[in-house]
This record gives sequence, C-alpha cells and structure tokens, in this order.
Amino acid sequence: MRAEIVAVGTELLLGQILNTNARYLSQELAALGIDVYHRQVVGDNLGRIVRALEIARERADLIILTGGLGPTQDDLTRDAVAKLTGRGLTYHQPTLSRWEAYAASQGRNVAADSGKRQALMIEGADPLPNETGWAVGSALTADGTHYMLLPGPPRELIPMFERHARPWLRRLLGEENALRSVMLKFAGIGESVLEERLKDLIEAQSDPTIAPYAKEGEVALRLSTKAATEEEARRKIAPVLEEIRARTGSHLYAEEDIALEEAVVRKLAEKGRTVSAAESCTGGLLAELLTRMPGSSQVFKGGVVAYTIPVKKSLLGVPDRLLEGADAPGAVSPETAAAMAEGALRLTGSDYTLSVTGVAGPSEDEGKPVGLVFIGLAGRGLSTRTVRLQLAGDREGIRLRAAKRALYELWQALAES
Amino acid sequence: MRAEIVAVGTELLLGQILNTNARYLSQELAALGIDVYHRQVVGDNLGRIVRALEIARERADLIILTGGLGPTQDDLTRDAVAKLTGRGLTYHQPTLSRWEAYAASQGRNVAADSGKRQALMIEGADPLPNETGWAVGSALTADGTHYMLLPGPPRELIPMFERHARPWLRRLLGEENALRSVMLKFAGIGESVLEERLKDLIEAQSDPTIAPYAKEGEVALRLSTKAATEEEARRKIAPVLEEIRARTGSHLYAEEDIALEEAVVRKLAEKGRTVSAAESCTGGLLAELLTRMPGSSQVFKGGVVAYTIPVKKSLLGVPDRLLEGADAPGAVSPETAAAMAEGALRLTGSDYTLSVTGVAGPSEDEGKPVGLVFIGLAGRGLSTRTVRLQLAGDREGIRLRAAKRALYELWQALAES
Repeated sequence: MRAEIVAVGTELLLGQILNTNARYLSQELAALGIDVYHRQVVGDNLGRIVRALEIARERADLIILTGGLGPTQDDLTRDAVAKLTGRGLTYHQPTLSRWEAYAASQGRNVAADSGKRQALMIEGADPLPNETGWAVGSALTADGTHYMLLPGPPRELIPMFERHARPWLRRLLGEENALRSVMLKFAGIGESVLEERLKDLIEAQSDPTIAPYAKEGEVALRLSTKAATEEEARRKIAPVLEEIRARTGSHLYAEEDIALEEAVVRKLAEKGRTVSAAESCTGGLLAELLTRMPGSSQVFKGGVVAYTIPVKKSLLGVPDRLLEGADAPGAVSPETAAAMAEGALRLTGSDYTLSVTGVAGPSEDEGKPVGLVFIGLAGRGLSTRTVRLQLAGDREGIRLRAAKRALYELWQALAES
Repeated sequence: MRAEIVAVGTELLLGQILNTNARYLSQELAALGIDVYHRQVVGDNLGRIVRALEIARERADLIILTGGLGPTQDDLTRDAVAKLTGRGLTYHQPTLSRWEAYAASQGRNVAADSGKRQALMIEGADPLPNETGWAVGSALTADGTHYMLLPGPPRELIPMFERHARPWLRRLLGEENALRSVMLKFAGIGESVLEERLKDLIEAQSDPTIAPYAKEGEVALRLSTKAATEEEARRKIAPVLEEIRARTGSHLYAEEDIALEEAVVRKLAEKGRTVSAAESCTGGLLAELLTRMPGSSQVFKGGVVAYTIPVKKSLLGVPDRLLEGADAPGAVSPETAAAMAEGALRLTGSDYTLSVTGVAGPSEDEGKPVGLVFIGLAGRGLSTRTVRLQLAGDREGIRLRAAKRALYELWQALAES
C-alpha cells in the first residue's frame, strides 16, 4: 500500500506552524508497513486542494489529509474531497448534537453559528470521532482510492489517529501484512551513548528492524517485524529485546510508548507511594509533568515553585547560611537542592520529594554557567541524594531535560525500593 | 512571484526528521513577499524527484529544493535538476579545492572518494557557497523558471540562505514591493466569537488582507499588505487596525507575535509588579508558563501546587469550612479559588496572585462536571475576584485554556491599574 500525506493550511505555507503532523503520520504509516512516497502542503484554496488531490490520486492508494476541518469559510478540506469524489456532505449526528448542546450552553445562536460545520463529513464515509475537539474525521474508499480526513491540531489528530484511524487502516490492510512493533523507551541516557552500547545489534539488524527515535529528553527504539499474529511477532522480537534489556538495565523504563512521567506515576500508584516537588529553574514544569495524567492526585501531593530566594527561605525553609554570604554555596548548589527537597517533604508529608535548582539561561547566574543543574531526592527513611548535571541546549531544552532527569532519579529509587 | 518548496529525502518520508527547513523557508519567502502555494516532500529516487519538479514547474516561478546534495549515491537532487533542465554538472572549483585539501589531510584517497560530488553544481548556475559544510548550492534560471538547490542540514541551509540565497532572491525581485504584515494576538475570546465580531471586515478584506490563526488557548489575526516601505505599510494597515482595536478592546493583548504569558510578564516588569500562583487542576502549568521567559524571576515570586485537599489547607490555609462537610462549597468553588489566591498572596508577598481550581477530567470530581474551572485573582489593595469557566476539550486542553484564562484576568487587572 502506497500513501500520500496532504496537509492543508495557509498557516503552514506561511511558516507560522511546523508540520509536525506529517512527521507523526509518516512514522505511524511506516510502523504499519505502509510506504509514503510523497507529501504535499497546500493552502486554503478549493481549486488548489482539489488539484493536489488529483496529483496524489495518480500516485497513491491512500491519501491522508490533515487540517481544514474547522468552522470557518477557509476550512475547505471536506468540500475538496466531496468535489473530487462526487459525493455530498452530511452531518455526523452525534457530533452535531454534542456541539448544539455546547453552543446552547454558551448562549450562542445555534442556528446561525458556523461551528456546526465541524460536524460535517463526506457522505457514505466512516466517521472518525473526535474525542478531544469538535471536528469529526472521515475515512472512505472511492474509485479504488482510500481517503482519510484528519483535523489539523495535533492534540485532536493524534488521539483520533490512535483510537479510530489506525484501527480503520489495520482493517484495510487485513491482518497478514501487518507490521508489528514494540517501542522501547529509555531515560537517563543520551541517544549517542545508547546507540554506542547497542552498535553491533543496530548494524546487524534485519528482522526485527531496530529504528532509533529521539524525543526531547527521552530516547526511544522501535523493534519491528512483519507477522501474522501478535504472538508470532513477540517470539521473533524476544531474543533482541532480551539482549537490549540486559545491556540497558534501569534506563529502559518502558516497553511501550509512554512518557517517563507516566511510567513514574504508574509505579508510584503500584507501590502506594506519593511524591511532591520543590522547583526553582524548572518553574513548575516538573509538577506539570507529574499531573498531566488523570489520576495523578493519588500519587502527587503538591509542589512549591520557589523561584526567588525569599520564597526558598520562607516556604521551603532553606537556611540563610546556604544562600547568603560570600562563602555560601548559593541557590544553585547540591546543599540547596537537598534543603529544598527536605523542606517540601516536611511541608507535604509525601513519601518522596524531588527538587530542581539550576541555571536555565540564557545568561549565567551567581557566576554559575548555563545548564548547571542540581537534582535533589529526599524520602522518608532515605538519606537525601543530589545529582549534578551540566546540560546543553536552550532554556526550554534545559528545563525539560532537568525535569526528566529528576523523574529518572525517582524512577531508579522506586526500582531499588 | 510564486514559489514552491520541494524537500528531497527518504528520511523525511519515514518521519525520522522533522521538516524544519520548509517552515524556515516559508517564513523567509513570506517576508520577501514571495507567495508559497505548495510544498512537496519526495524521496531519494531520481524519477520521482524529476516528476515532482515537473509538477512544481507548472505552478511556480521559483522552485526551492532542499536536501539531496550530499556525497552518496542516494543524493540525487543535482542530477534531477540537470535532467529536467537539460544541463550538465560542473565542479565548483573553490569547493573542490577546499575539499581535496581536506580529504588529503585526512589521508583519504582523493581520486576515489565520493565526497567530491558535493562540489558539483548545475552548469551555468550561480554558486551558493556553503560556509558551514561541504555541499555547494546552485541558483539558476532555465526556460523562465528559477531553481535554487540548498543543502538539507539546517546548520548549512540557514547560513547559506542568509548569506547567499536571500541576496540572490532580492536581486531577482528587483525593486518589487515587499509584503509587510502585523500580527494581532487575542486572549479571553474564542476564534469563532472573534470572527463573528469582525465578520464584515474579514469578508470585505482586499488590502490589507486579514488572515485568522488559532493557536492553543490563543487567537491571532495577521494583517498584510504590499508596500515599498514600513511606513507606507503602516499607513495602509492603520484604518483596519483601528477598527479592530475598537471592536476587541482588552482582548487584543499584542500587536506582534508573542504569547500571552510574555505580554503579561512584560507588563508586570513595566509596572514594577510581581505575581505568584496557587494552582490545583493546572498542576504547575501556570507557573511554568510564567517562567518560560528569561528574566521572569523579576516578576514571578513563586507558586504553590496544591493538588490535594491537605496541601490546600496546610500550605495555602484554605479553611476547613470551605472543604469539609455536606454544605461546604468544596475544592472546586469560587470560595476556594479566592482563599487559595489570598493564601498565596500572604505566603509570597507578591502584588498579585492567580489561583486556578477545577475539574480537568477525564472524569467529574465532587460531583462537578469536567471543564468547570474557577480562577481567582487577589492583589494588595484589591478586592479578590473570581471567574467561573466551563471549558470544553480534553484534560490537556482544559488545563492550558484555564491557565491562559487566568493570565488574561491578570492582563485585564494590569490594564485597569
């Protein structure tokens, strides 16, 4: 099966947003064993979208469109596919009802409001429900070509793809050709160090294939093989997986595509433990990561963002002698990281506390270089540990890697306990 | 002038790398007043690259190719353009000499090494020197179409574009007018409500054009016009801008492309005021947004993430009577939002405090529905205000919109003060 991805949106052509959807879909289609030979980006113009689809239809069996499903008159993807396939548009009743109830609750004029356009789909298509937004997706086959219409915002596109579009494609492919894969997620280890450690395996790969993926602050490998059943795939992947496990130890935190914070929250819940956070340079990011998952209130008690020296003292009880005077270690030091963690432990009564203090940049602080970060881990009945990091990258990258590294320290502590 | 960007590289189609070049070039071409109507991505296959260029040639005056200029057999961009234009390939002597000297210094077999392919350019083209890598670029005009070949790695492409490709394009454009635009950013108002309010202006637009953009939790409009000077552009845009300002009031928080948190941090700095945060359902996100910008420690004192009832009481001093008992308003209530904000104000000594408490989902809490959120704003010498929101979307979307809405409340208070 050969696919083409057509992204619709003038904002892409103006460079206002990055086409992360195309990358996501390219990876997902590769994982399904579907070849992508071309991608296009076209603006919000009916004629040009139709022409782009005519070109795509000549060279692909499956055309995946992203964007242009919103409420405005510039949202023309539905109209273009309808025109190309000679079909009409029809309302997806569940989406329409849900939208009308919402619009009424907001006091909008339901009859006149253009928002209901988002409930329109191609006649005869299978609806792809949107559980994180309004615009419904469509999947259909017309004159031997398969079409899939997905919304532009990634936080709508990704859940729709995972819950509805991927299963539709799997049915289309049948079971026999399916490429099956296992995602391995690593933390506390850099991409190049990991690849060095697995170099001979990566170079010798044939079946399963080993593909590395780097995401911000995390490293992933995907092992893939073609197999008729999940069980057969598991059997083919097992020897390589076993070898990777042995070589990477606790750096391998999950054998599925979940974020490190999710693995940590799950592990805390499993062990009935709680955590809190005391942050300086990460400014709330560590707490935010820990509370992204539903149910995190069972394991996350709370946090303090002690962004200034007075708040480090008043709220977390960091002693003056660490922060003031020429000989004091200062706010960015292992001593302060430890005191912050112990302060938050007392305040919140959690089992563990993570602290982060450092220089996120762009300029140095207290004469300490950008990227210098100390992580603290305190716990009941545990002697407090600190870790010194020298991180590269910009402010955003340093903050994210510092928060992820703090999570990895807790992950290790939980593995040991 | 109409341009098309054609990115060459199988690694893009596999999703292994993100096509950041396309975004960069889209922005740069827009800034030059060159329209981009299409973008393509094609793999490392000679026939498919030539075919993609044939399609591009029919609809664009200028084709910018990225990637495929490396030393391997898979690097086919030069060959494709040579084939399409009927021209030969020739060595760029300065690049060839530089490369040969380098290869010899590394002890390589200079005659046999494929590295010298990177010194090849299209016959008769203007060379675009590569000062941060080996592959030379080309710029040429053939049969009325302009072609530009740029390397794939951004750290080679960006300097080559800035130093050599952009000047070449400026010469090509001659004195033609450049497109100039103003970005307007709005908060506290939805995309469809804003468009409704400006409907007649959007429908009647011709010069300047009005293009809406929705980003997560924010809404933007771009006004654009072609003009010889910045001053002429401002004069042409002024009447429409004035009308939009009058209709949108304090929802219009910036006339440049900055995030709401950046506008708020700047305004606080300008007024010499400080803020702190008391968060429940946003879990640290509000503090994280406020600390994204360098220098935010001047205006952000700190925050408390009171994710559980005991922490709301112990850290923020929310009274029992609000949280316990059948008649208590509960954690998700205007009373608790107010008490959280007032508690953080006392703790941190800041001028303002924002609080957020709500149900981020996916399931209801205290019998209160998903998306119900209360924002509190307390300040020195200010009577505490609260705002009730009923937000749609998933957990992540609700958290982000709640945090942005809290920022908007502060933005309004600062505008009034």
